Amino acid sequence: MNLTILGCYAATPRSMTNPTAQVLEIKNRMFLIDCGEGTQVQLRKNKLRFSKINHIFISHLHGDHFFGLIGLISTFSLLNRHNDLHVYGPKGIKEIILLQLKLSNSWTGYNLYFHELTSNEPEIIFEDDRVTVTTIPLQHRVYTNGFLFKEKPNDRKLNIDVVREYGIETCYYQKIKSGYDIILDDGRTIPNEALTFDPPAPKSYAFCSDTMYNEAILPIINNVDVLYHESTFLETEAHLCERTMHTTAKQAATIAKQANAKKLILGHFSTRYGNTDKFKEEATTIFNNVVLADDGKVFELDK
Amino acid sequence: MNLTILGCYAATPRSMTNPTAQVLEIKNRMFLIDCGEGTQVQLRKNKLRFSKINHIFISHLHGDHFFGLIGLISTFSLLNRHNDLHVYGPKGIKEIILLQLKLSNSWTGYNLYFHELTSNEPEIIFEDDRVTVTTIPLQHRVYTNGFLFKEKPNDRKLNIDVVREYGIETCYYQKIKSGYDIILDDGRTIPNEALTFDPPAPKSYAFCSDTMYNEAILPIINNVDVLYHESTFLETEAHLCERTMHTTAKQAATIAKQANAKKLILGHFSTRYGNTDKFKEEATTIFNNVVLADDGKVFELDK
Repeated sequence: MNLTILGCYAATPRSMTNPTAQVLEIKNRMFLIDCGEGTQVQLRKNKLRFSKINHIFISHLHGDHFFGLIGLISTFSLLNRHNDLHVYGPKGIKEIILLQLKLSNSWTGYNLYFHELTSNEPEIIFEDDRVTVTTIPLQHRVYTNGFLFKEKPNDRKLNIDVVREYGIETCYYQKIKSGYDIILDDGRTIPNEALTFDPPAPKSYAFCSDTMYNEAILPIINNVDVLYHESTFLETEAHLCERTMHTTAKQAATIAKQANAKKLILGHFSTRYGNTDKFKEEATTIFNNVVLADDGKVFELDK
Repeated sequence: MNLTILGCYAATPRSMTNPTAQVLEIKNRMFLIDCGEGTQVQLRKNKLRFSKINHIFISHLHGDHFFGLIGLISTFSLLNRHNDLHVYGPKGIKEIILLQLKLSNSWTGYNLYFHELTSNEPEIIFEDDRVTVTTIPLQHRVYTNGFLFKEKPNDRKLNIDVVREYGIETCYYQKIKSGYDIILDDGRTIPNEALTFDPPAPKSYAFCSDTMYNEAILPIINNVDVLYHESTFLETEAHLCERTMHTTAKQAATIAKQANAKKLILGHFSTRYGNTDKFKEEATTIFNNVVLADDGKVFELDK
C-alpha cells in the first residue's frame, strides 16, 4: 500500500506547493483522491501512469480539491483512453463536468460514470474482490466526505512443507488458502490451521479532509492503520477553526489517538506558515506516530 | 507595450510546458489573454501582480484556453480582491463559472462581470481613453475570437523651446499636446505643427489562437505591429490542419505577410515536437521578422 502525495496545501496553488491530490495504490488498484488544479502535472512529475487510474474520489466541491478534475478528464481523452472512468463526489460534480465538456464540444471517447454522493451516513461506495471504500461524513462548510479504503482479508498462506507431506495436490491449494479443511483419500480431516499460516492483516487507510474536529467519525475509522487528517492550522490560529471549519494539528492528533490509529499523516497546511515542522511538534504532544505530508512524498504504508 | 507569455503550448499542461495564457501590458493596463490550467501559478512565477488584472479575454472554450479561469477567480477572492473583474469570452463561460461558485458556496467578494460574445463580426468589446479591444472572428472547431489591442493616438510632443520662445503659459500645454493651434495675445495664430513634434505612433497587438488559415481576418489586422498567430503544426503535419482547424507555421507567416504585420510571434505549438526551432525556420521562408513564443518569455514590443 503506497500513498503518493501530489499536493497537501490549502487554498491556492503556488509556485512550489500544490492543492490537495493524492494517489493510493492498494492491492494493485490505483485510486486518485481529490484533484486540485495542476494534479495532472503532478501525476506526470511523480511518474504515475494516467491509464492506471480508474476511480477518482472527490471529498468536496471547494476549488482546491477539484479544479483539476476537468483538465484530467480532458487529458484522458487526448491520450485516447478507453477504460471506464468512475468519479465519486458530491452531487453537482456531474453537472460541472458535463457542462464544460458540452460547451467545449469535447465528449470523452471513454465511458465516464459519476457516482454522486448525498448521504450523511457512512456508505460503501466501491467494492471489488480486493478493496472496499466507505464514505466518512465530515463537517465542513460544504457537503464533504472523507474516504476509508480497506483491503479485504488476504488469503491464508500455505505451509507448503506440511501440505506436500500430506501429498495434497496443487488443485486444492486455492481451497486451502481460502480457509477450508482438507479430507485426505484415507478419510482423515486435516484442519486448515495445520496447513496454513495467518495471512498479513488487511490494511486500511482513512482520508479525512476537509473537516473540523469531529468525534462522530471515530467509530468509522476505529483501529485504522493510517489516518490522513487535515491540520490546516496550528494552535495559535485555533480560533479560526470554528468559522472556517478546519482542524489544528493537535485536534487531528486527538482524533488519531481516540481512533486508535497506528499512524497519523498530517496535511492540508495553510499556506500562511513558512514551514510545517511545528505541525509535527504540536501533534506529537498528543499522539506518537506522526508524519507530515509534503508534495511529492511517497509513503510505503505496508512497512 | 510588454507581452509576457505564461503558456504557449497546445493541448495538455506538462511538467515543463503550459497551455495558452499571456499578459499584455499596454498603456499601463494589464490584460490577461486566455487562462489555461496553471495560469495563476505562472502569474506568480513571472512575478505579475494579480491585482493589476481587471480584464480577462478568453478566446474559446477549449480546456487549454480556459480551465485555469475558475481557479484564478477563486484565488482573487482568497486574496481579498475588491476591484471589479471583467471577463470577455464565448457564451457559456458565465454559466460554467457561476455553477462552480454556487456549488462551492464561494461567491466572490468583488464584482464579477461577464461580457459574453456571440457575434461573428468584429466588434469593439473594450474601450477606454487609452486602448480599444476588437474581436477577430476566427475559424476553429468551436466559436472562437482573437483580439486586437490598439493604443489610442498619443498626445503630440511639445517642442518646449519654441513654446517658451512664444511665452505660452503652462495652462495651454495640454491643449497644444491635443493638437490645437494657439492664438497669442497679439493676435497671431501659431499652427500646432510649429509647437509640437509627431508623437510615437500608437501600437497594436493581435492575438489569433486557435484558428485554421483564414484570410478573412486580414482586413481586421492590417498593418498590425505585432501578430501572435497560432502555429500548432509544421508542414509535415499540414494534413491535420483541416480536421483539427489549426495552422502551420508557414500558413501563419503567410497571414503575417499579407496583413503587412511588422512582427510575427508564433505559438500554440503541438506538444508532439521535441523543440520549436523548425517553426521559425519554416515561417522565415515566407516572412522575415519571426520570433517564437516560449513560456516565461517577455517581449518588449515597443522596441
